[in-house]
Amino acid sequence: VVRSEGPADRGDVRRHNLSLLLRLLAEGGPRSRAGLASDTGLTKATVSSLVSQLIDRGLVRDVGQAAPGSVGRPATLVEVDGTNLVTLGVELGVDYTGIVAADLTGRVIEQRRRPLSRPSVGPRDVVAALRADIRAATGRLDRFSRRVVGITVAVAGMVDSESGAVVFSPNLGWRMVPLRDELRRALRTSVPIGVENEANLGALAEFRLGSAAGTKHLVYVIVENGVGAGVIADGQLFRGRFGQAGEVGHTTVDPSGDWCACGNRGCWETTIGMRALLTRCVPDQAVRLLNDRRLGPEEKVAFVVARAADGDAVARSALADLGRWLGIGLANIVDVLDPEVLVLAGSMRMLAPWIHESAVTAMRARLPNPASPRVEVSTLGYSAAGLGAALLAAERLLIDPLAELVPTRA
Amino acid sequence: VVRSEGPADRGDVRRHNLSLLLRLLAEGGPRSRAGLASDTGLTKATVSSLVSQLIDRGLVRDVGQAAPGSVGRPATLVEVDGTNLVTLGVELGVDYTGIVAADLTGRVIEQRRRPLSRPSVGPRDVVAALRADIRAATGRLDRFSRRVVGITVAVAGMVDSESGAVVFSPNLGWRMVPLRDELRRALRTSVPIGVENEANLGALAEFRLGSAAGTKHLVYVIVENGVGAGVIADGQLFRGRFGQAGEVGHTTVDPSGDWCACGNRGCWETTIGMRALLTRCVPDQAVRLLNDRRLGPEEKVAFVVARAADGDAVARSALADLGRWLGIGLANIVDVLDPEVLVLAGSMRMLAPWIHESAVTAMRARLPNPASPRVEVSTLGYSAAGLGAALLAAERLLIDPLAELVPTRA
Repeated sequence: VVRSEGPADRGDVRRHNLSLLLRLLAEGGPRSRAGLASDTGLTKATVSSLVSQLIDRGLVRDVGQAAPGSVGRPATLVEVDGTNLVTLGVELGVDYTGIVAADLTGRVIEQRRRPLSRPSVGPRDVVAALRADIRAATGRLDRFSRRVVGITVAVAGMVDSESGAVVFSPNLGWRMVPLRDELRRALRTSVPIGVENEANLGALAEFRLGSAAGTKHLVYVIVENGVGAGVIADGQLFRGRFGQAGEVGHTTVDPSGDWCACGNRGCWETTIGMRALLTRCVPDQAVRLLNDRRLGPEEKVAFVVARAADGDAVARSALADLGRWLGIGLANIVDVLDPEVLVLAGSMRMLAPWIHESAVTAMRARLPNPASPRVEVSTLGYSAAGLGAALLAAERLLIDPLAELVPTRA
Repeated sequence: VVRSEGPADRGDVRRHNLSLLLRLLAEGGPRSRAGLASDTGLTKATVSSLVSQLIDRGLVRDVGQAAPGSVGRPATLVEVDGTNLVTLGVELGVDYTGIVAADLTGRVIEQRRRPLSRPSVGPRDVVAALRADIRAATGRLDRFSRRVVGITVAVAGMVDSESGAVVFSPNLGWRMVPLRDELRRALRTSVPIGVENEANLGALAEFRLGSAAGTKHLVYVIVENGVGAGVIADGQLFRGRFGQAGEVGHTTVDPSGDWCACGNRGCWETTIGMRALLTRCVPDQAVRLLNDRRLGPEEKVAFVVARAADGDAVARSALADLGRWLGIGLANIVDVLDPEVLVLAGSMRMLAPWIHESAVTAMRARLPNPASPRVEVSTLGYSAAGLGAALLAAERLLIDPLAELVPTRA
């Protein structure tokens, strides 16, 4: 509470006020410097100085006069340079990369995915592939005078978001890869780069733009090869101590069940992950599908859906059982987090018609009170994590508008 | 961000400033009105007016002059009336009630428990018992000129902390009991009364005063008849949507395991709760011990500990197995919440020497990275929830010093 007048403190105040002005403009639309002053309680001189700094960095711009109908003498309005500024969300999958470009309001400008052709996912190759993707996207955006002001990479695994390092990613086989630093070197950019867990980013995207947007207690559960979850608690992304909150794939739901790649038995992922899905629903094709590198997860799941739609009894019965296991694991999450809504993503989106009912029934039977959360299916598609990554980059810019960003184009 | 000048708003500002002054005095010690003004940036006139209101309510008092050595002309100091003000934490167990009285710094003034003699736990009887306990404590405290300024009741079950109602308590057999309103009527007091889940309060006590105090990501796990947990996330008590966060007793850890009273199989509580403990460790005495109403949980657990200490092979082997189930459930919690420390309470305190190692081994085997949390045993004893209840009442007072409290003694 005690105020200090040291320069570090004044820097904090300036950063706070810059963020305040940029947020007001991004969320509330254009206004005059006098309007900004009265909205914030800052002096007009302070507002003018801060707005100049934001203009220098290309974050806001002057935009002519107030509308003719308005009262008082006309004043120059300031607005976020929103048509120009974009953030990139970069997805780093085991066998693909993806890019989502969005403006500061979360509107998607472009969205692409491409397979990673070679089987290697060593850090050097991945950084080269990401650099190519980011350069190509930056080039395309540049043609429309759009400037990239922030990048976040979505990674399946444990991430140190402070240092931007991938601490551990079983899927990629990475340990302690300083991804942010290597990308920054490869791109030779001063644009802020962040690294975050993909399920956390999916949760953020659902909280901002999904069907349950704004729900203060939300859990995003994504099932593909494995299972992950991202947690919004009290309206904030909840990361836990090491950003590992929501790593639910290896929670034990059946200690006498199937062996898991992690060395234990009956992890949730052994009951609802891709291997369980294919082995139980389409046993005659499971080995072929699991080993076919040309098939993405969507195509494998589509195979199961086709069988079920054909009325195949094995597939239908296995899907109902899979729904029950889904419900058991969801109930375990609800017991710990008490959320208002669960959003299902990944393979669960396509499988919903076949498993939703058995999942909800199994979940409700295990919750001791009538306050079961809603179970919804993600409407954001496969790139929720990429979208969340773009949103997080925008959010970081709004929190600290001058971080690392140089006045001239990167 | 836009400022309004309405009276509701001014009330908020006053409440905020009263809280600010009271916190400064409670946490930082006595100071002059001028000192309070310079520490908070408020004008001296505002500080004087707010301090008068706090003095009127008996929350702070004038305390003579600044020390002779200090610079400038001597000023009257103000301090929290800390020797006089206490909060009560009231424990409502199935077969006992308890009271913890603490001052505003969390120092325990007195602590008592008594068995509820009759088997009935109907709301009417319980409210009468609590009224007697609270009146007796208030009377004892009054003899030392101590005044009760807040009460929180700790309940095993689902609580609506806004309305102070017990929504559902399986142990007490209660549904929708407006406990706060009934207690307030019975006590005829205007002292603020709160109602909160006991595991949440245990977590709060551990976070403030336990061996892991100050750890930002902490989970408190209490095992007695059933199993409950309270969650500190990012340094805050995390309640979830309905205050149900951490209700881990009925998470499924073994779907082909024992039937639970809740109607499902293999809830965590069927593997480590009191029934499992006695049935597996002392099978020859389990029925007798479970049905003996005169024995408290401590005495039942002591019986098991005595057997194990005697070298009984059945008890020792069953305890190791119980430890393994404890570890499996703890790993499931860690996967979701990623805490820094787990604090074990209830029967796990006495059993720790026999189960700690197998629990930690089983937990670590299930966590995919080396970042396992510490597993500690509570040092706060059986009344952690009561202590947490007293702390919460003090915290609420500091947040809103004038809430419901009348100027004269209640």
